Amino acid sequence: MTTSTTVLGLGAMGSALARAALDAGRPTVVWNRSPHRAQALGGRGAVVAGNVEEAVAGDGVIVVCLFDHQSVHSVLDPVAAGLSGRTVINLTTTTPNESRELAAWAAKRGIVYLDGAIMAVPQMIGGPGSAILYSGSVTAFEQHRPLLDRWGVSSFFGPDAGMASLYDMAMLTGMYAMFAGFLHGAAMVGAAGVAATEFAELQVPFLAAMTGQLAGFAATVDAKDYAGEGQQSLQFTETALAALLRATAEQGVAVEVLQPVHDIVQRQITAGFGDHGTARIFEELKGA
Amino acid sequence: MTTSTTVLGLGAMGSALARAALDAGRPTVVWNRSPHRAQALGGRGAVVAGNVEEAVAGDGVIVVCLFDHQSVHSVLDPVAAGLSGRTVINLTTTTPNESRELAAWAAKRGIVYLDGAIMAVPQMIGGPGSAILYSGSVTAFEQHRPLLDRWGVSSFFGPDAGMASLYDMAMLTGMYAMFAGFLHGAAMVGAAGVAATEFAELQVPFLAAMTGQLAGFAATVDAKDYAGEGQQSLQFTETALAALLRATAEQGVAVEVLQPVHDIVQRQITAGFGDHGTARIFEELKGA
Repeated sequence: MTTSTTVLGLGAMGSALARAALDAGRPTVVWNRSPHRAQALGGRGAVVAGNVEEAVAGDGVIVVCLFDHQSVHSVLDPVAAGLSGRTVINLTTTTPNESRELAAWAAKRGIVYLDGAIMAVPQMIGGPGSAILYSGSVTAFEQHRPLLDRWGVSSFFGPDAGMASLYDMAMLTGMYAMFAGFLHGAAMVGAAGVAATEFAELQVPFLAAMTGQLAGFAATVDAKDYAGEGQQSLQFTETALAALLRATAEQGVAVEVLQPVHDIVQRQITAGFGDHGTARIFEELKGA
Repeated sequence: MTTSTTVLGLGAMGSALARAALDAGRPTVVWNRSPHRAQALGGRGAVVAGNVEEAVAGDGVIVVCLFDHQSVHSVLDPVAAGLSGRTVINLTTTTPNESRELAAWAAKRGIVYLDGAIMAVPQMIGGPGSAILYSGSVTAFEQHRPLLDRWGVSSFFGPDAGMASLYDMAMLTGMYAMFAGFLHGAAMVGAAGVAATEFAELQVPFLAAMTGQLAGFAATVDAKDYAGEGQQSLQFTETALAALLRATAEQGVAVEVLQPVHDIVQRQITAGFGDHGTARIFEELKGA
């Protein structure tokens, strides 16, 4: 059992992680609260543990992929006393502070802790396009690279266990905002009888091209160069956003996705920055 | 003067349009309320008109690029009686209904009306990447293609004069939502000391890749296939967005860009669609 991998939690993602380990020919122990998913993996050669104690009885790495932060504690707390010296790789979706709490919890018990954030859907695990961000124990990251690299492209973001999750969540924020903005646009043209697929043919290459603006915003933010030349002013952006909101309302579409963006811009103008660049939205959002 | 082009309004965009016409060797008449911008173009060979009457006295096409819908009326209403049979190409930023109002106003006066929406910043006019959407009079669009194509790639969206502006605004909605989401994410990692440029290196290719999801959303919306296989459920998305909001607040970053996206998803779940796909956000946004 020296090189075995234990996977706790066999939702769609946990099952995909266990399958990839099995496909790599690694001895794999699986456990799930409801046992039917474990049985499917048993048919592929996994050792199905009857309970958590049994699942972590060996000395291999313990991979955790549960519902949320609370369920990680529910599953690990009862067996934690026996895990000193063992490595836990937690791929459960948690906030940065929840990851940090788990890292501190593990440190107190002599458990080596690596936190991971998966940038892929379950079907992508082990295939092209799958990427997983890690932070926490660099030793665990390096030691288990052969396993991690089976799941996707592995990147390490330093010893702060919250950093992988923070990067992940920051990136997903942009993605969900873009998704909502796209569906808002589709609803606008949809009200005039245009199919969403027809709209997507123009919008997708346009949005992909507009990602090219983001590095410029980032450079402006880092340099705090909001008064520099060649930027689209907040005043110009406010006029544009006000027109977009009018047009949205004219089409009978809900304004709620775009309204806050307008209001943030307006507050920065009210604060006296109308002739500054639009990247100043960052200053309105960031923490004190 | 038969083939002359009149440009009314010489802000950054109007000046760029006039410059491109001059660079193409076309006789160009320019007018602006404040005359100093007209003089710069006079130095490049434009005929500087002293007033609007003089500017539209010939029989060439009239290009309008003013501040807003109201300013188009302020400039054109006093001279409209003499414009019967003439062609007006309006590139002022207006909402779809404002464009339609101008088209109806023009039709009543025997004026041929083409509405345009510019997908470029002034510096891009006449160069690569510049695109202009048109709708309204197809005759005007076809007759003036040699001029239009000097400004950028020209596309025609049918006789409804509001359609170019509607497409433009629907596309810009997605862009501004993406910009705000990016700056939100940059603020999240920024609170942990990560530079925005460092974040952009990961986020830009990720967002560009995620535009690949949008065609799938569009197909789902058109087919109303929200209960179909293989979609990320609203329930899953709500859990993810709730975690993103918690993480945002933990970092001291304002939640207002993302909160409405979460709330839209939550309302669809409350309405009984938790196991439906996330593209159902469309149904919550669209008009009745």
